[in-house]
Amino acid sequence: MPRLRVHNLSISVDGYAAGPDQDLEHPLGVGGERLHEWVFATPTGLAMLGESEPPGGAPGTDDRFLARGEENIGATIMGRNMFGPLRGPWPDEQWTGWWGENPPYHHPVFVLTSHPRPPLTMAGGTTFTFVTGGIEAALEQAGEAAGDADVRLGGGAATIQQYLRAGLIDELHVVVVPVLLGCGERLFDALGGGPAGLECVQFVSSPTVAHVRFARADPEGRRG
Amino acid sequence: MPRLRVHNLSISVDGYAAGPDQDLEHPLGVGGERLHEWVFATPTGLAMLGESEPPGGAPGTDDRFLARGEENIGATIMGRNMFGPLRGPWPDEQWTGWWGENPPYHHPVFVLTSHPRPPLTMAGGTTFTFVTGGIEAALEQAGEAAGDADVRLGGGAATIQQYLRAGLIDELHVVVVPVLLGCGERLFDALGGGPAGLECVQFVSSPTVAHVRFARADPEGRRG
Repeated sequence: MPRLRVHNLSISVDGYAAGPDQDLEHPLGVGGERLHEWVFATPTGLAMLGESEPPGGAPGTDDRFLARGEENIGATIMGRNMFGPLRGPWPDEQWTGWWGENPPYHHPVFVLTSHPRPPLTMAGGTTFTFVTGGIEAALEQAGEAAGDADVRLGGGAATIQQYLRAGLIDELHVVVVPVLLGCGERLFDALGGGPAGLECVQFVSSPTVAHVRFARADPEGRRG
Repeated sequence: MPRLRVHNLSISVDGYAAGPDQDLEHPLGVGGERLHEWVFATPTGLAMLGESEPPGGAPGTDDRFLARGEENIGATIMGRNMFGPLRGPWPDEQWTGWWGENPPYHHPVFVLTSHPRPPLTMAGGTTFTFVTGGIEAALEQAGEAAGDADVRLGGGAATIQQYLRAGLIDELHVVVVPVLLGCGERLFDALGGGPAGLECVQFVSSPTVAHVRFARADPEGRRG
């Protein structure tokens, strides 16, 4: 059974994983880019942007955590809002994600949506499969696609909340960024009593952010 | 004009400053004591408990921040829930706070309440004055009592929210504790668009918690 892992999920000190008013021009919400500045100060983050010669990225704690989010991952699940700004039925096949021709996944990606759409094959080994059967169906498909590797849960916040409520997350790595956004999309919300069973297993800070890694206290307890 | 400062305010990664169901037996809410374990691992924290020979407290980052919360403070403001578990009109004068005969303030303390009560003089220089005129009246009285020193805003979360909404806080030191409480009293909530004007001026972690200090971006902007 593959493990379901969340990595490098940035939140502000006041708990927001994205700013308000997410749309085509503000995929992270207004002000939300402040949550991700730490990523693009690292070699791994710069490489994600396609900059093969990082000009200013410093290796170190942040880079190690960022790289760890890629290790032993065979498939990714994401919510539809992370795939694109469109809502409702797909108007056509034109939108292929935020990431251009060669998305930085290089493995099968499963997009949760209420609206069917044919799969999409991109350059570099990334495929997008649109799952209308809900979060457990997506996890099952992603687990099969991942083979012996783990499944990464991308986001956004609402999708992570769905999996937290269902008790399906094995590892949750949160990055606390020392800013106050004031409003936006809260990560730990609507959890009906909370993300039970997740205990802190690692706490490390860089000069810019705090990394907190939670894991299931009872690793056998998932889907028990 | 004295500055209004909040220090050593612990919150969980999911944003709670206290656990749920605060009462006489659980002044920090159920599970809320996990937010304060870092305090009692320091010499300053142990001294607050009256332990003059700290057995295991380690000086360091946490201790320095804890001690800083006492420096140049001439008066404290707190909400009624921080003073005690009683609600509604005061039944009598018996409840004198959580802290015994000699509270760890040693200066004038102003307690926000809707219900009048005569002032209370404790050992060690602490006085409790009950303010029914609202947060601005309390700040004015505390400022006069503090003289040339600053005023500390104690808590709890609802009281800090009132002052944040009014834009009256000059410095806010939050301690992010790597736990998930799941429920309780959220600090950054009901702010109607957020704590505008507070910017991070310091971010330092110890091995156990992350300290984030916010200050007014425009120091002259208060009560402008």
